Formats: sequence, structure tokens, C-alpha cells
Amino acid sequence: MRAPMAITTGDASGVGPEIVLRRAADGALCDGTSVVYADASVLRNGCGLLDIDPAIDVIAHPSEVHAGALCVIDAGLLGADQHRPGQLDAASGAAALAYVAAATDAAMAGHVAGIVTMPINKEATQLTHPEFVGHTEFVAGRCGATSVTMMLTAPTPHGALAVTHVSTHCSLVEAIERVRHDRVLEVIRLTDAALRGYLDAPRIAVCGLNPHAGEHGLFGREDADHIAPAIASARRDGIEATGPHPADTVFFQAVHRDRYDAIVVMYHDQGHAPVKLMAFDSGVNVTLGLPIIRTSVDHGTAFDIAWTGTAFTDSLDHALAYAWRLAGS
Amino acid sequence: MRAPMAITTGDASGVGPEIVLRRAADGALCDGTSVVYADASVLRNGCGLLDIDPAIDVIAHPSEVHAGALCVIDAGLLGADQHRPGQLDAASGAAALAYVAAATDAAMAGHVAGIVTMPINKEATQLTHPEFVGHTEFVAGRCGATSVTMMLTAPTPHGALAVTHVSTHCSLVEAIERVRHDRVLEVIRLTDAALRGYLDAPRIAVCGLNPHAGEHGLFGREDADHIAPAIASARRDGIEATGPHPADTVFFQAVHRDRYDAIVVMYHDQGHAPVKLMAFDSGVNVTLGLPIIRTSVDHGTAFDIAWTGTAFTDSLDHALAYAWRLAGS
Repeated sequence: MRAPMAITTGDASGVGPEIVLRRAADGALCDGTSVVYADASVLRNGCGLLDIDPAIDVIAHPSEVHAGALCVIDAGLLGADQHRPGQLDAASGAAALAYVAAATDAAMAGHVAGIVTMPINKEATQLTHPEFVGHTEFVAGRCGATSVTMMLTAPTPHGALAVTHVSTHCSLVEAIERVRHDRVLEVIRLTDAALRGYLDAPRIAVCGLNPHAGEHGLFGREDADHIAPAIASARRDGIEATGPHPADTVFFQAVHRDRYDAIVVMYHDQGHAPVKLMAFDSGVNVTLGLPIIRTSVDHGTAFDIAWTGTAFTDSLDHALAYAWRLAGS
Repeated sequence: MRAPMAITTGDASGVGPEIVLRRAADGALCDGTSVVYADASVLRNGCGLLDIDPAIDVIAHPSEVHAGALCVIDAGLLGADQHRPGQLDAASGAAALAYVAAATDAAMAGHVAGIVTMPINKEATQLTHPEFVGHTEFVAGRCGATSVTMMLTAPTPHGALAVTHVSTHCSLVEAIERVRHDRVLEVIRLTDAALRGYLDAPRIAVCGLNPHAGEHGLFGREDADHIAPAIASARRDGIEATGPHPADTVFFQAVHRDRYDAIVVMYHDQGHAPVKLMAFDSGVNVTLGLPIIRTSVDHGTAFDIAWTGTAFTDSLDHALAYAWRLAGS
């Protein structure tokens, strides 16, 4: 039997475990292919809050996953009385990180096929782990990965578009400084390698940095001096990369004309703004460059609506499906 | 009788006059509210190419506009034998600029209600006018306007979204340097003034520059040091401006949640990428800060498909409707 996919439920105060339970109540996640890293007491308490009753089985090891119930690896950190829907809570923040640590270790050991993460509340986790920067950095550190990049995916009329980032969480001034041949080439290579999990020759469009991709040097030199040479290097490696393309038309060409499978963007908002406009609740966040598969829902803990039964559940389905796609099945 | 709206047909080699003729053949533009600045010989030759036969009347002055025909102010610059569909041509480029000059002067004199411009081919016009930078700069110069900004509009499920730019055609490094209190405030004011043409209290969202609008200074200082104070200044003037908002979620909130009527963006692609993704063929380009009304279609001359009868014609309808909206009717 193949290893199941791990799902970490994220902060118990937020929408993560709520969405898992509601999908389980719909009959999803109970077919013997998923294992949930969570606190079983929180899940049981949550069923009461939501007035739903999915079957929940606590198992000791991912190899015990079976059909007919939501199979849970119980962290045993939070009791039902420590479940604080909608509240920023130190214990919930710490527990959320523990689920990820356990699932990451299981993936590194090959006991699970990969991990799908529900949202952590950074502020809550920092109450006990002040060094915590973010989910991605935590998983990368635990895996010993040094070169990672964030990929967002969004459904399109033709399938899915993948968007990878040369930089993400830094100032725009710093993002411009990071647009250098080696880093751009690295992200093109990571993008190509990831998409080759399900495509023979991914068509990768590389965005320019400046308006009109610099218009022949009229609006900045980075496009010609750093991005174009990186694309040339990638093409010499047999990668189907083109560009630099103007960032204001390439998304339309990819989404509505099916010209590209992936877009490499130079900074956070260059990728996030178009993707969130077209796929606010259905996007998937993938970390490339890890030795394990890791996808994430593309929303936060949403404390303001958590445990009211109103959060959209689609993003988990998309994140899980994409994790399996990357796993080649 | 109110003054008609002027339409300049742009480069005769491109799709501009073709779209005007095809709309006229459909019965549009012939109701006595529009006047076309063009070469009548080109229009008549074009009807033959397209195999259509709209009524065309050459008039000497906008006050002679009447219903029942496409009313044309004839520049008399190009003969039918100088009409070169799809070809870069110096005479066509020069003529395109002459139509705009005449229409701009008519607007300044109050003889037309405003101008709607079809695309010029910059390269063609520069063959005879090497100092030509762009349509917007030309019109601004002819009107004596010193402070203008580009506004894009896009249809949304709730109406229309307006997007105005703190900077457009400059490098991203320079765009960051232009994010200063006075310029941001100026663009907020221009946006508010324009939308008050049809809204009582426009809801204006101002984008941040950095990811997550800087996340409290973690990713750059411009959001806190320049953008936030400009918003505060605008609010003291009674303008309903908010922000700085993260650029990757504000478009979704405006388009799908109807939270804002306009978004002020800090650089070219921050506005153009989302707008072109959702309104590639239906966007309208408006120049704010002029003493006259000027809107433009949001596409180019498209020499590759010009005069084949295939170009989308919607953008002209949108640009014309928006010009009338700005004129308060």
C-alpha cells in the first residue's frame, strides 16, 4: 500500500481543523489515503461545536491508516478545555507547530507521501517560539533545505497555472536586488523540475521586472542584464523557458490563451496579485526545493469566522489534489 | 444641442479606423453625438476592404454633427492610395497625430465634449516626429497640463473599477523613488475628482508598495513613511481614502466584494497586471489631470490583424461610454 498524504490541521483556534472536520463529515478524507496530524480532543470538541459527527480513529502510525474514518495521529497537547475558537492562544500556536514537525519527520522518513498544511497563526506561534518566521522556513529548516521558493497554483479554464517567486517576503527595493542571474536560473530550474512531476516539457514564461519588461533598456536594465541571460542559461539546459515577458500581459496569455504552464515572477505581489484575483479561495501554495512534497492552503487562520461553519473548504481539496499530482498520482 | 464627443481614429494602418467603421456599419456612432477625426479617403477605402457600407458625411465643424451618418472632420492628409493596412508608415503615423491635435484643440475650445483616442503606433509617428513620447504626453503638452496620471478602468460584476497610477513608464527602481507624500496625495486627489463626476463619495483604496503593505515596517518603510501620511492628508480633505492595503488582496476585495470604487497603485504593473487579466479587451484608459476629458481604448494598433475584420470592437464602446460618464451624462 502506498503511503498516505499527511494533513496538518494548523492552529486549533482557526479554520484549519474546522475545514478538515467538515470535509470528513462530507465523506472526504476517509478513504484510507490521508492521515491527519492534530489534537484528537480538539477535533472531538470541534464536532460538537459544528454539530457534525464524522468517524474519527486515532492511530499510532501512518501505516495504520484505513478507510471508513478520519485517521488521526494525536499530538496529545491540547485538551478539549484548551480549545479556544477564534482566540489567539499560546498553547494552540505551539501545538500547531508540533503537528507540522511530526508530519515533516514522517515525510522525511517516507511514512507519508508528503504534507498538506492548514494555516498557522504566526503571532500565536511566536508567543512560545519567538524565532518562528513562517511555515515555509520552518519546514525547510527541519528538512535541511537551503534553497526554496514559493509556488502558487491557480485553476484556469485549461487546467492549472503555477507561479513561482524569485523573492517573496522582503521589501521591493531588496526584491529588485535579488533579481540576479543565478537566483532567477535557480527558480526556473525548481519550477521546471516540479512541473515535470506531471508534464513532459513545461512551458515556463519568465516575467520581466520593469514595465514592458524594460522596453529595450528604456525602463531599467535588470530585464536585459540578469533575467534574459538566466533564461538563455535555462534554455541551454533544455528547459522550455521564454521571456522576459511584460508582467501585465503574460497572465492573460497563460490563463485565457493557454500559452504557458508556469510563470516565474520577480517579487511577491507580481505573482500574488493576479493569482489572488482569480483564485482567492482555491489557490494552492507549494514549497519547491524541499526533499519532501509540501503544499498548503492559500488562506489564513481567519479567527473572525473560525468554527462558525462558514469558511470555504475548497482550498484544502485543491492543496491535497495538487500534493498527489506532485507525487505523480 | 450639447457638443458631440470626438473620436480620433489613430494610425490608419492599424485597427483604429477599422473598428470605427465596423461599429458604424452596426448602426453605432451615427446618432448625432459623435464626431470622428480621420482621413475620409482612408475610411472610404477601408469600407471597400471590409465590404461594409456605412453612411459617411464629411462635415466642416463639430457643430454640424447630425444623426444618420458617421460624421467626419476630414484631415485631408492621406489619399486612398496612401492607405497601407498593416504596414508601418511615416505618413500614417504623422496623420494619426494630426487627428489628435485637431480634436484636442476642439475640446479646449469647447466644440467637442471630450476626446476618445484610438491607438497610435509610436514607432510610425516617431518617423516624422522623433520627439513623440506617447499619446498622453502629447495631449497633456498641447493642453498645457503638467500633472497628469493614467487611470485604467475595468468592468466588474458591480459596475466599474478605476485604477490610477502614481507612476507608469519608468523603471521599478525609479517608481519606488516616486512614492512620496506629495505625489501620492496628488494622485488620490485626481482620482477623487474624476470619480466625483459620477459618484458622491468615491471609495478609494490606496495600495501599499511592499508585500503585505510593508507588514509594520518589516518589509520596507515607504508604506508607513510616505503612503500612510498621504492617505491621512487626503482624509483630512474629506476624501474617502483608505490604506495602504496589501496589493495582492485589494483587487479581489474591489472586484468581487464591491468594497472600493477606485484603487491607487504605486507603479505600472501593480495596476496593469490585474486589470489586463480581468479586462484584456474591455479596459478603458483615461488621462486624469487634463483640462479636457480624454479616454482611450486599451489596446494597440495590432498591425498583425488590422483590416481583416477580426479585431474586437468592445473597447471603443467602453471608452466612449466612459467619456460620457466623466462628462456627467
